[in-house]
Amino acid sequence: MESSALARRAARLSGSMPAAHAHDVISFDSGHAYPGVFPELRAAAEVALSTYRSETLQYAERPGLPELREWIADYMRKDGANVSTSEVIVVNGAKHGIDLICRLLLDEGDSIVVTSPTYFTAIPLFKSFGVNFVEVGRDDEGMDVAELQDVLDRVVAEGRRLPKFIYDVPDFHNPTGVTMSRRRREALVDLAARHRISIVEDSPYRKVRFECESVPTLKALGYEQTILVGTFAKLVAPGLRIGWVSASTDALARMLQLKSDGGTCPLTQRMIIEFCRAGHMATHIVKVQQTYRTHRDRMAAAVRRELPEASFTLPEGGYYLWLRFPDDVDTAELSRRAGQSGVITIPGTRFFAGDRSGPPKNYLRLAYSHASPDEIDIGVKRIADALASMTELAVEGSGTASRTI
Amino acid sequence: MESSALARRAARLSGSMPAAHAHDVISFDSGHAYPGVFPELRAAAEVALSTYRSETLQYAERPGLPELREWIADYMRKDGANVSTSEVIVVNGAKHGIDLICRLLLDEGDSIVVTSPTYFTAIPLFKSFGVNFVEVGRDDEGMDVAELQDVLDRVVAEGRRLPKFIYDVPDFHNPTGVTMSRRRREALVDLAARHRISIVEDSPYRKVRFECESVPTLKALGYEQTILVGTFAKLVAPGLRIGWVSASTDALARMLQLKSDGGTCPLTQRMIIEFCRAGHMATHIVKVQQTYRTHRDRMAAAVRRELPEASFTLPEGGYYLWLRFPDDVDTAELSRRAGQSGVITIPGTRFFAGDRSGPPKNYLRLAYSHASPDEIDIGVKRIADALASMTELAVEGSGTASRTI
Repeated sequence: MESSALARRAARLSGSMPAAHAHDVISFDSGHAYPGVFPELRAAAEVALSTYRSETLQYAERPGLPELREWIADYMRKDGANVSTSEVIVVNGAKHGIDLICRLLLDEGDSIVVTSPTYFTAIPLFKSFGVNFVEVGRDDEGMDVAELQDVLDRVVAEGRRLPKFIYDVPDFHNPTGVTMSRRRREALVDLAARHRISIVEDSPYRKVRFECESVPTLKALGYEQTILVGTFAKLVAPGLRIGWVSASTDALARMLQLKSDGGTCPLTQRMIIEFCRAGHMATHIVKVQQTYRTHRDRMAAAVRRELPEASFTLPEGGYYLWLRFPDDVDTAELSRRAGQSGVITIPGTRFFAGDRSGPPKNYLRLAYSHASPDEIDIGVKRIADALASMTELAVEGSGTASRTI
Repeated sequence: MESSALARRAARLSGSMPAAHAHDVISFDSGHAYPGVFPELRAAAEVALSTYRSETLQYAERPGLPELREWIADYMRKDGANVSTSEVIVVNGAKHGIDLICRLLLDEGDSIVVTSPTYFTAIPLFKSFGVNFVEVGRDDEGMDVAELQDVLDRVVAEGRRLPKFIYDVPDFHNPTGVTMSRRRREALVDLAARHRISIVEDSPYRKVRFECESVPTLKALGYEQTILVGTFAKLVAPGLRIGWVSASTDALARMLQLKSDGGTCPLTQRMIIEFCRAGHMATHIVKVQQTYRTHRDRMAAAVRRELPEASFTLPEGGYYLWLRFPDDVDTAELSRRAGQSGVITIPGTRFFAGDRSGPPKNYLRLAYSHASPDEIDIGVKRIADALASMTELAVEGSGTASRTI
């Protein structure tokens, strides 16, 4: 059978999902949750399947259960964004939200702005819509908004079409772990508003903060074309597959017309409502923060001890360390060797959306979320051994080379 | 913000979902399940959230849980289709499966074959991909394959592009309730294979059979480009949001590249596995069949009693009666009036995909699935009263007319 253009584009981008690993393999690749942090959800399920069985076993309303939408709106208001219940819809996880936004806004040949590097799972999703990437650099304050301004000014001056939206993960950016500063956020929102470009704020890690004060979300800065994508994957558990999109009621109404899924699972929605209503959410978030802070600290210490060649900015939250190795270290090879000795990592090149100028080869993303603290020590040691084997080979190789000349 | 072409098309098709109704309103519109038939799922949830918590609360593999895929393949083999586990993927309900098939196969301007009438929820989904419809008639044996053959022969003779796929609901067709005969199925598969056109067999009601022997699925007839879409919505409960797609491993691999949802909910997948493993599925299917047979019989008797003007073919299964009224009855008006007196129905015109020749105005679809037997009696009486009020008005109107002339 003949595939669609969409399918042909997607086929060119295969292999972007982390593979399932054998049991003794340590996974630093994916943003899976640490099993030790999963909440107890049996009581919530019991209520959902008894008191609410006529709701949880039936088809659900497309926008989501009203109580959950209310809870999310309230949660966002407490976080500084002036959002009403009608400005929230429930979706099947954050990626489903991003997919619906793409379906709402993108036509083939459109462009979008992403940071360089950016969230690697979103790259093939964006590409499947046939978009062109406008890549913008970043530093320890987040996206380089001055660079973006230059780019947009040039686009306007040349009479070209503006990008459809600006995509970013401003809190604990994936993969770099960096949180965008307040002044950068304000500058970004001002710039987007001036050009009437939508902002897509991907915010999965917002509450996974270990220290320091949080910075307002982009959504909280009041530009009405900011679309926030949230998820309960990090707040409760990924397996429930519940996320949300917050945007203008008009944009959401159009997005719902594209949500051809017969409603998001009412059972897992109701379980989240009951979990929150029983007062577990606040204490669970503290547990999540404490758990991943321990994981981060353990990994940061292990990297400093075992991999002194690597530098990184300590993230204030989130799931990832973004390691920078000396320029001559090819992390694709390092990742391959580490994989052979039982630790899975993702080479940095995978996080660069564009393919014009070759991306730097000396970055490596390590997720500290899924592995246990002891596994983190063992895994980092395995990476160090893999790196040592590369250096030995290089020394050996250059030795051989000098001998043969 | 500026919408995509996809979103603009979807916007033109709004209002296609049944609305939520007030409590005393009787719903004959949607294929919602009868609450009295919902199974007891607390034990399955308890096991899923204790024994399998590291699976059910984590991200899931994209193709679905291996045990559920095995169960589905086995279920399909027992139903006559020679399907391996690798030829099945799990999706977020049947509509998600149809959406993925469209994403795999359709480009703007492609055509697809549908029956006239066809499943009305699929129409806006198909239209959002920018397709053209080739509508084919049907009778009490299902799709008119001879007519389709003429159409395809003409397409070939004129050197035009063949349709990308043939969509149908061969068992207890939605909306007509008719099951396609075996000889028609064989003729359809032969014709599709001759032209190398894919078949999309939408099979939600397969096991909701009240009497007579079942006919082989199209998938069981062995043509490798037949894609079957199944669901647990009717086998267990709609709220679990679990369906499946069975196709060639190659087609499924490409579909998975387009499944940007972070995996289908592992919790509800595991609940279904546990429900089956505990031996409840077989007895539950019998309960489903008995329940809806009672509903169908109650509605058929009520229609015969209260609406002698309407004719219908008694369906051997499924959820719907497709009423044909005399040619001069406008069911849009009938449905509007019935709605005012508290019973929601869907006028037949909504089930016709094309808009070239005006669809017949004298059909009405009634779902007997959701309402209770007593509500079925009351609801049909309300429709009869609404019809009587139209006739009175017509008589009155003609009386007035004759008086004024």
